[in-house]
Amino acid sequence: MPPTPPAPRASVQTLDQTTAPTPSAAGTRGLRDRVELVLTEFLERQAGVLETVSPDCSPMLDAIATLLSGGKRLRPAFCYWGYLGAGGLDEDDIVHAAAALELFQAAALMHDDVMDDSDTRRGQPATHRRFEALHAQAGWAGSGSRFGLAGAVLAGDLCLSWSDELFALAGFAPDAVQRGRRVFNTMRTQLMGGQYLDMLEQASCAQQGPAGAVERARRVVRFKSAKYSIEHPLLLGGSLAGADDALLADYSTFGLALGEAFQLRDDVLGVFGDPDVTGKPAGDDLREGKRTVLMAYAVASATPEQAAVVERRLGDPDLDAAGVEQLREVLVDTGALAGVEALISEQVDVACATLDAAALTEPARAALHELVVAATTRRS
Amino acid sequence: MPPTPPAPRASVQTLDQTTAPTPSAAGTRGLRDRVELVLTEFLERQAGVLETVSPDCSPMLDAIATLLSGGKRLRPAFCYWGYLGAGGLDEDDIVHAAAALELFQAAALMHDDVMDDSDTRRGQPATHRRFEALHAQAGWAGSGSRFGLAGAVLAGDLCLSWSDELFALAGFAPDAVQRGRRVFNTMRTQLMGGQYLDMLEQASCAQQGPAGAVERARRVVRFKSAKYSIEHPLLLGGSLAGADDALLADYSTFGLALGEAFQLRDDVLGVFGDPDVTGKPAGDDLREGKRTVLMAYAVASATPEQAAVVERRLGDPDLDAAGVEQLREVLVDTGALAGVEALISEQVDVACATLDAAALTEPARAALHELVVAATTRRS
Repeated sequence: MPPTPPAPRASVQTLDQTTAPTPSAAGTRGLRDRVELVLTEFLERQAGVLETVSPDCSPMLDAIATLLSGGKRLRPAFCYWGYLGAGGLDEDDIVHAAAALELFQAAALMHDDVMDDSDTRRGQPATHRRFEALHAQAGWAGSGSRFGLAGAVLAGDLCLSWSDELFALAGFAPDAVQRGRRVFNTMRTQLMGGQYLDMLEQASCAQQGPAGAVERARRVVRFKSAKYSIEHPLLLGGSLAGADDALLADYSTFGLALGEAFQLRDDVLGVFGDPDVTGKPAGDDLREGKRTVLMAYAVASATPEQAAVVERRLGDPDLDAAGVEQLREVLVDTGALAGVEALISEQVDVACATLDAAALTEPARAALHELVVAATTRRS
Repeated sequence: MPPTPPAPRASVQTLDQTTAPTPSAAGTRGLRDRVELVLTEFLERQAGVLETVSPDCSPMLDAIATLLSGGKRLRPAFCYWGYLGAGGLDEDDIVHAAAALELFQAAALMHDDVMDDSDTRRGQPATHRRFEALHAQAGWAGSGSRFGLAGAVLAGDLCLSWSDELFALAGFAPDAVQRGRRVFNTMRTQLMGGQYLDMLEQASCAQQGPAGAVERARRVVRFKSAKYSIEHPLLLGGSLAGADDALLADYSTFGLALGEAFQLRDDVLGVFGDPDVTGKPAGDDLREGKRTVLMAYAVASATPEQAAVVERRLGDPDLDAAGVEQLREVLVDTGALAGVEALISEQVDVACATLDAAALTEPARAALHELVVAATTRRS
């Protein structure tokens, strides 16, 4: 094997130093550090396994460590507070389970970026672009984009396998593991199904027309984002702690409502967000032609002229700043933006009311209230 | 969502009927049926979970069921006999663990075909081609090849997640699960590493030249094929049964030797096999430019003229029958084919000698001897 060229790399040892400070809920700051530590130690262990194959595998580990270093750690926070809210003790086992969710998320992001052919993620080159750059820099033979794709598929497969491995390492009692696995399994299958549904919606929405488009887009949000971002992490924590059915039902209601609000905020930021803060180029969602709830609202009440603008501009890979502005105007003028903001508020209200009425520990209630704010008023 | 067009599909219910009879080792015929049953029931359960997302997810399940229906069930057989060889009882738990390996293999194949952009697998369209065809048939918008790629990445992710889920369902005692997971985890990480190494070798071998090419190709074989095809399935079975270190060491020696012979046979079939029997077009490996041990042997002892043929023809996507024939001649005339056949024999001898000396049960010894023959003298 050739010596690995000095590609852009983040050593696993520096993971904990590269985490940017962001607003965090009560106690979550300490949790962030503990999650970093678990991930850093786990990646060191995996570096040893990959080393048995070849030292040339190190770019895989670098790609994973880099992506992991940029997370908001929202999913671990929900898992952790779901556990403590149900009376679980603040010990290392739940931090391991929570950290496993970050690996699952990393797998989803790497594969998602390959499927969408995205250029950037968390302000850095997407994983497949990273491997493409490595290929170009080394002057290797064959297609760089194919090398990039393969690198990202494999790195994502590693993260998917490792999320399960880390979960198993947490060390819960067999009955807790069994309850937790049920959630973990449902989360994985529903996310893949939700991603497929998203892709199908993008491909078939023109055929299907605007009728029902809002409902279809909301269904994609539920399965592609709300469940695995918030509902399942909470349920995982709750199940591991042995929460009763009533609390688990409240976690579901809270999680789905907040999860939808979280993704809707993401959609709004994808069009109206500040690229310096979001880490994604302005209008990327528009260039990719994403059929978001925001867009479905716009199409549902567009004038023929406005509909023509969407038809012409949405999904244009060469969309320029003026084109982005034109689509933004349609989203504002049709009332779509206001409609989505109203829906976010409505879902936040449902989440907060459920949280207020749920039978969980007080520190968890307070922390989850803070997480509601963090998830829905964020700018990145 | 639009009604799903009537794409080529294999219902999970027919899985057990679509298995072609093939030579099988003692007792393995019954095992095949039991593995089918476990997989069929497991996929029915997963159909229910995907249904909660949308009935439109059914093409994912169809793609997985179709791929699974074509397997030789070699990995389950090694796992099963590894277990019985170490004194494990012939019960349902080991069949579940063995079947989980088929799902892992399906994940690897789906993603491998995406990475190699292969057209066919097991005589059927590769998974991404299947989703491409679905896209074309439905007349959906956007890029069909992108839709195909995404479908195969997601279906592979499902199989990867499900392999772990099925393993956990097997119902072994916690200490056995822990021993088994150690093997399962190593298998997953080393396979992804091995696949990366393979890709790296294809990309960089021209830069590196022929020196050491045979050793590098053999290393790829070990990590990309031998370990997860034979060594790890055997070790998984053995570990679950609580085999002692001496037997596990014998399983490793046997598995690596036979695994290498198995893959070398695959490489020979990839160039010299009968397409009607292998289910793959003649010369596909040559068109893809695979840097196999066979090819490394040829390059190592090629005349300048022969080297020029390899240089010109290998990896030519439009390689015709005459070109395939020309490369075959080089492989024969350089002695590469004879060299690989000798290496296969050598490894088979190591495997058989190890097996004869190992302290395992007699039925397992007999069955593994039959599997040696099945794995290395096969024609597909």
